[in-house]
Amino acid sequence: MVPRYARPEMTAIWEPEAKYRIWFEIEAHATQKLAELGVVPESGAKALWDWWKTDPGIDVAAIDAKEAVLKHDVIAFLDWVADEVGPQARFMHQGMTSSDVLDTTLAVQLTRATDLLLADLDALLGALERRAREHKYTPTIGRSHGIHAEPTTFGLKLAQAYAEFDRCRARLVAARAEIATCAISGAVGTFANIAPEVEAHVAERMGLAVEPVSTQVIPRDRHAMYFAVLAVIASSMERLAVEVRHLQRTEVLEVEEYFSPGQKGSSAMPHKRNPILTENLTGQARMIRAYALPALENVALWHERDISHSSVERFIGPDATITLDFALARLTGVIDKLLVYPERMQANLDRMGGLVHSQRVLLALTQAGVTRDNAYRLVQRNAMKVWESDGRLSLLDLLKQDGDVTAALPEAELEEKFNLDYHFKHVDTVFERVFGGA
Amino acid sequence: MVPRYARPEMTAIWEPEAKYRIWFEIEAHATQKLAELGVVPESGAKALWDWWKTDPGIDVAAIDAKEAVLKHDVIAFLDWVADEVGPQARFMHQGMTSSDVLDTTLAVQLTRATDLLLADLDALLGALERRAREHKYTPTIGRSHGIHAEPTTFGLKLAQAYAEFDRCRARLVAARAEIATCAISGAVGTFANIAPEVEAHVAERMGLAVEPVSTQVIPRDRHAMYFAVLAVIASSMERLAVEVRHLQRTEVLEVEEYFSPGQKGSSAMPHKRNPILTENLTGQARMIRAYALPALENVALWHERDISHSSVERFIGPDATITLDFALARLTGVIDKLLVYPERMQANLDRMGGLVHSQRVLLALTQAGVTRDNAYRLVQRNAMKVWESDGRLSLLDLLKQDGDVTAALPEAELEEKFNLDYHFKHVDTVFERVFGGA
Amino acid sequence: MVPRYARPEMTAIWEPEAKYRIWFEIEAHATQKLAELGVVPESGAKALWDWWKTDPGIDVAAIDAKEAVLKHDVIAFLDWVADEVGPQARFMHQGMTSSDVLDTTLAVQLTRATDLLLADLDALLGALERRAREHKYTPTIGRSHGIHAEPTTFGLKLAQAYAEFDRCRARLVAARAEIATCAISGAVGTFANIAPEVEAHVAERMGLAVEPVSTQVIPRDRHAMYFAVLAVIASSMERLAVEVRHLQRTEVLEVEEYFSPGQKGSSAMPHKRNPILTENLTGQARMIRAYALPALENVALWHERDISHSSVERFIGPDATITLDFALARLTGVIDKLLVYPERMQANLDRMGGLVHSQRVLLALTQAGVTRDNAYRLVQRNAMKVWESDGRLSLLDLLKQDGDVTAALPEAELEEKFNLDYHFKHVDTVFERVFGGA
Amino acid sequence: MVPRYARPEMTAIWEPEAKYRIWFEIEAHATQKLAELGVVPESGAKALWDWWKTDPGIDVAAIDAKEAVLKHDVIAFLDWVADEVGPQARFMHQGMTSSDVLDTTLAVQLTRATDLLLADLDALLGALERRAREHKYTPTIGRSHGIHAEPTTFGLKLAQAYAEFDRCRARLVAARAEIATCAISGAVGTFANIAPEVEAHVAERMGLAVEPVSTQVIPRDRHAMYFAVLAVIASSMERLAVEVRHLQRTEVLEVEEYFSPGQKGSSAMPHKRNPILTENLTGQARMIRAYALPALENVALWHERDISHSSVERFIGPDATITLDFALARLTGVIDKLLVYPERMQANLDRMGGLVHSQRVLLALTQAGVTRDNAYRLVQRNAMKVWESDGRLSLLDLLKQDGDVTAALPEAELEEKFNLDYHFKHVDTVFERVFGGA
Repeated sequence: MVPRYARPEMTAIWEPEAKYRIWFEIEAHATQKLAELGVVPESGAKALWDWWKTDPGIDVAAIDAKEAVLKHDVIAFLDWVADEVGPQARFMHQGMTSSDVLDTTLAVQLTRATDLLLADLDALLGALERRAREHKYTPTIGRSHGIHAEPTTFGLKLAQAYAEFDRCRARLVAARAEIATCAISGAVGTFANIAPEVEAHVAERMGLAVEPVSTQVIPRDRHAMYFAVLAVIASSMERLAVEVRHLQRTEVLEVEEYFSPGQKGSSAMPHKRNPILTENLTGQARMIRAYALPALENVALWHERDISHSSVERFIGPDATITLDFALARLTGVIDKLLVYPERMQANLDRMGGLVHSQRVLLALTQAGVTRDNAYRLVQRNAMKVWESDGRLSLLDLLKQDGDVTAALPEAELEEKFNLDYHFKHVDTVFERVFGGA
Repeated sequence: MVPRYARPEMTAIWEPEAKYRIWFEIEAHATQKLAELGVVPESGAKALWDWWKTDPGIDVAAIDAKEAVLKHDVIAFLDWVADEVGPQARFMHQGMTSSDVLDTTLAVQLTRATDLLLADLDALLGALERRAREHKYTPTIGRSHGIHAEPTTFGLKLAQAYAEFDRCRARLVAARAEIATCAISGAVGTFANIAPEVEAHVAERMGLAVEPVSTQVIPRDRHAMYFAVLAVIASSMERLAVEVRHLQRTEVLEVEEYFSPGQKGSSAMPHKRNPILTENLTGQARMIRAYALPALENVALWHERDISHSSVERFIGPDATITLDFALARLTGVIDKLLVYPERMQANLDRMGGLVHSQRVLLALTQAGVTRDNAYRLVQRNAMKVWESDGRLSLLDLLKQDGDVTAALPEAELEEKFNLDYHFKHVDTVFERVFGGA
Repeated sequence: MVPRYARPEMTAIWEPEAKYRIWFEIEAHATQKLAELGVVPESGAKALWDWWKTDPGIDVAAIDAKEAVLKHDVIAFLDWVADEVGPQARFMHQGMTSSDVLDTTLAVQLTRATDLLLADLDALLGALERRAREHKYTPTIGRSHGIHAEPTTFGLKLAQAYAEFDRCRARLVAARAEIATCAISGAVGTFANIAPEVEAHVAERMGLAVEPVSTQVIPRDRHAMYFAVLAVIASSMERLAVEVRHLQRTEVLEVEEYFSPGQKGSSAMPHKRNPILTENLTGQARMIRAYALPALENVALWHERDISHSSVERFIGPDATITLDFALARLTGVIDKLLVYPERMQANLDRMGGLVHSQRVLLALTQAGVTRDNAYRLVQRNAMKVWESDGRLSLLDLLKQDGDVTAALPEAELEEKFNLDYHFKHVDTVFERVFGGA
Repeated sequence: MVPRYARPEMTAIWEPEAKYRIWFEIEAHATQKLAELGVVPESGAKALWDWWKTDPGIDVAAIDAKEAVLKHDVIAFLDWVADEVGPQARFMHQGMTSSDVLDTTLAVQLTRATDLLLADLDALLGALERRAREHKYTPTIGRSHGIHAEPTTFGLKLAQAYAEFDRCRARLVAARAEIATCAISGAVGTFANIAPEVEAHVAERMGLAVEPVSTQVIPRDRHAMYFAVLAVIASSMERLAVEVRHLQRTEVLEVEEYFSPGQKGSSAMPHKRNPILTENLTGQARMIRAYALPALENVALWHERDISHSSVERFIGPDATITLDFALARLTGVIDKLLVYPERMQANLDRMGGLVHSQRVLLALTQAGVTRDNAYRLVQRNAMKVWESDGRLSLLDLLKQDGDVTAALPEAELEEKFNLDYHFKHVDTVFERVFGGA
């Protein structure tokens, strides 16, 4: 986790105090159910909850001090709670293992983190839809291979991004369900010393599903899937960031990241305005992608469990969610405040002298009875002149002067082939597919 | 693709002939719809289907020869079809781009490949369930950190694997839906020269959904997600393979990969029987995992599309699916024919002199009124003697001789704590969770 | 391996026949040394070499047929050799294990592959140097963040690439040494049944060093390092490919991949010329990078060895080297025939109305006694006008009209600040650093 | 960075104060050279160094406060220095860009980090050599595929690890040289406003080499190589960690991580002693491996530079070096204090009833004139009985009772084949290769 790429709400989820609060809740809910089942006295559960109602602070330093001696984090915590609550606290943790607490806590942390990420995605989707509708019919050149192809609209570009992040949202909802399970199954997961009813109770109270079969730990294929989904989201984020970077290039300059009045782009070069936010996002996407790898390697734990996954998760749990939260918010800000230059888009569209309409002329010639080969040749011989003139010549003008062309296509028809609107007749169809009716 | 790790049915999906057959079907369905819409004559579509009904062979060599000259695979194919069908073929591909054909074809290939993989998973699940039920109550030692922990059953181990692959199956079904889309949207995806109805028609005929918004290409976040799911499945496969490798170790030897009568484990050492199939699977899992990476990097195509994804997909499309198909089948064979040694499991369970029951004695002492600390100390001082005897001493015997212990726990109660069945009372609960009722 | 991305010389290294030839040589050299040591009769070695001198074909199908029965590739091969050579062949492989043959063979294959790759790099370096010298003083705009920064030369761009690939070459030489070792050390690597002298002899004959300590296998950290170096080379390749793709963008168009007279850029759009070779290379770079991962995971073999690395290497051995060989050759072709447009470079340089000289004016004002803050303000107020005019205004003109500026800097001095050559005075220094004297 | 996996000396390198100290030194050395060259007055450089000699504290908070306003870290720092030093500070940074400072600083940080890592490796090598010599002739079973193969010594196992980390050390020395370069070349790296002599001077003072050709940034193939080497080291670390984990398994128990007197292995199971340090290392190795990926993706910066690498390096610079430093120290501790149980090794060696000598009998029978096939059959028929007896029968006994065997091999010769020492005759050869003479 890099502090400058972290936002407080997400960071808080991963702080010691938040973790200990979840630990307590899991232990207290379990104790309560154990009391109901008659395994421990009711007074044990009551004492815990009574103390909790006093809204006690968590003394992280005191717990740390105990851990330094005991070399066991969960025992240190239980000890500290016992100090606070008194002898009734001794009924906590009956028949449980540390993993029951730790793995269920990770599930709670990841679901909370995911809820923030879902809200981030919603904000991003909101910004994308707003700007897409704003530029639904703003003409711009579509590019394949970085080369001008045919006209499209800037709204369509953003609609594509919307659809992509909407898929990401659905994936994240599914990923949340993957990791939202509770395991309170005791040593090697046999429930030998703790009844499945305890697990069901804690699960329900913590907003989780029951893990059908745990082996002291929750199986790590769930987490692998989760971090793989974050990696996919990061990659989609990178796509949109790269698009902005491309469109802000000096020679293209169809959009710019918002540049605040007093900002300096470069200490040395007073003329610079750089797409630094999206460049920054590109790097963050690389990191989030990388975190999926150790998560995948974590799956093959030995036998009922080993603890190699633990050090990995101490890194990637916070680092992947905190960075993605920051990055999605940054991306939303970029889209929200993006400076869009429709005149420049039109100028770029026009700079190839109308070459972007070559396909329509080709098709029209074919439909007018010219063989495809001949039609291709006719268009190409004029198109190449325009290409070589670097757009100073106009394709339409040249075609009008080409007798072989006009023999097949009257001038008026020819002109119609250079009509931009022709390309936008299905924009509405796509918008309906993406954003639904209206 | 490594031929020795490939099975014919999956390989066939990726062979040129299969690809060309899909190309033809896409083109012919599109032409048919174009005819219905009045864009091309009915005779154009009819000619294509009439020829197709003759069940013509695909002359891959002839198409290749054309591509060598034309440097364009789709044009080469269309040319060859025109040679075969005659002039009516010229109405094919009207308003389409090569990507319309290529991306939709990849969708068809991946869905077909996925159907095979789903069948592979079903076979694996079948084998796992059968063996799990067979060994539902076969006692074996549960191990955490590679160290004996508490008893479990071999059936529970397999039930865990079943639940994991069942999750993988659900993920693969979702992944199939991700990539099962059809795009026939023309240059930069605006439908300028081809109506959305054509796309809908082809999609329906090819068993695909319509891609809501394509930009000449189907967005690659879909494929990234798909290959990420294969990577998760590979990791689960690795987990089970590693489990078998561990259990076959000389010192453990609780299971063995089937060893055919005439087989030689080693040319030099006549005594060897190695878990080579699961070792081999471990390596294959590493490969399938690696293929997810370039798929993730493919997402950030430039503008409406570039073609950097294409070379990646020529590798990972076949390599990931063919290898996973082979590996799943191999894993199913391993499970199906796995030699299981219950006596050896029991012997291993017993080799620690009953130490695996230490927790129960600890809990019983606590419940009998001994403080947890004292109880721990009482158990530990006897447990350590057993440990140091390398299991030659018996924990139960020592405890019976320890007056402090028997003062709290009468001998009969003590003996009950060493009852294996105690650990298995919830096996049925877990089986019901995993396999459903009955 | 994808056939269209493979060249015959590299592919041949990985074909069965080549592998079997190396197997034979290793076995024959070992037998010869065993004979010298008196372990086997001289006649055994002689029979092998006599047969080899007849230049016998390798009957791959016959060996395959034997392997199908024996399920052991090395035994199948030895059997076939015995069939061909006769009873004297029985002295082969004395005290050796299959790994001795397999690992040493992989070392030979990788060193041969590396020699081809080194030649590929030399060709690329040659092309880069030639084009760098050709364009040593061709002015072009340097871009940071995709935004115009200050002038540089196209030759400097290529010199940078040269220096980068020159480092790659040095890394590859080191990587070759890493994997060029021979192990003939018998079961678990103790030399119990084969003397170290045999290893030394085979190593020397096969052009390898002796592996200091093997454990039946050559340790896989060597191979991990090797494939990591290929991944770095691939990444440098991607950098240069991406540079070409950027420079070929319609709006930039400073260079183009060679476009042959009859070539068609697009079936639908007659005006297109796409940088498909470098896009293709970008995808290949992703693959080669991915292959490093399983190589890294291969390192942690269990105990003296397991065989999980083997399936991985059957993929990445050929796939990484064949693809990199193809890609380097393709990249060399791109550079060699690259169409370079100096006029367009100059036009792009000029399109910002001289803004790229803003730093020099700033520095000059400062040196003329204006405070840095004031100087920055003076330059910026004129620069912003030019920026907003989209380069139609000229910075020099505006500055000349700004009394505050001319008060500090006389017109002639001001003009000198817009001298392009000023930026190139150290081009020679850099060229000397990169290419050496002269 | 996870605080519990961090050691202070390495962490200090990455803290803001350390970074600012390096920034100052670079700026001050550059100013000094600029003064020598007559570009700035001598007094400017003197003022800086005079202030520095007062050993001023770095007020990180003050600099942060400035950055919050200026949004530029380097300018904020220069501003703060100017506040401290006075007007003479205005000559700093003349003709330089921020990248000159940032990239050179990263080089200094990475070289310092590397020096710590090299010391870590030296400590590990020391521990490995000491324990290897201690157990040079401690017999233990060599295992291939996790299955008993033939005898080796525990010292040989450690010698292998020593050789592997010795290679890692050499790689790290090379990697250090890769990233130890200084670039002070100004905007887009042309030296237009700063003479190459300044770069040479700063490089020499900071202990770096001159970067032959930079483009405002130091090329990132250098850093990719660096982090790839860390990934290889991590993988070797994982190998040794996994070896310890295997050897500590309950059924094997040939070694144990040191277990301090008061330590508790499990809160629930008083009998447990788990290899948690090496499990922990396994997870850390996964992380360090993952960090190489974004470093590889960083190479393909756009044109002369973009800034996407920067966010990546803010993560992996500290995270990879701090974690590896911690992990190497932890591994050294594990090896240093490793509890080794030679009796248990001998017991494991013996538990297969002498099967581990089967190859020697096979070879002896062959040399006594029995055909290889017959010899194999003779050994195998006795070996399988021993195997099935789970090592209760003795291979030697059975062979002595097999007339077909004794017909070829007299009893005394047979017995000699079961001599352990036979396997250790070349231990010394290997030790000499690994550790050098004596």
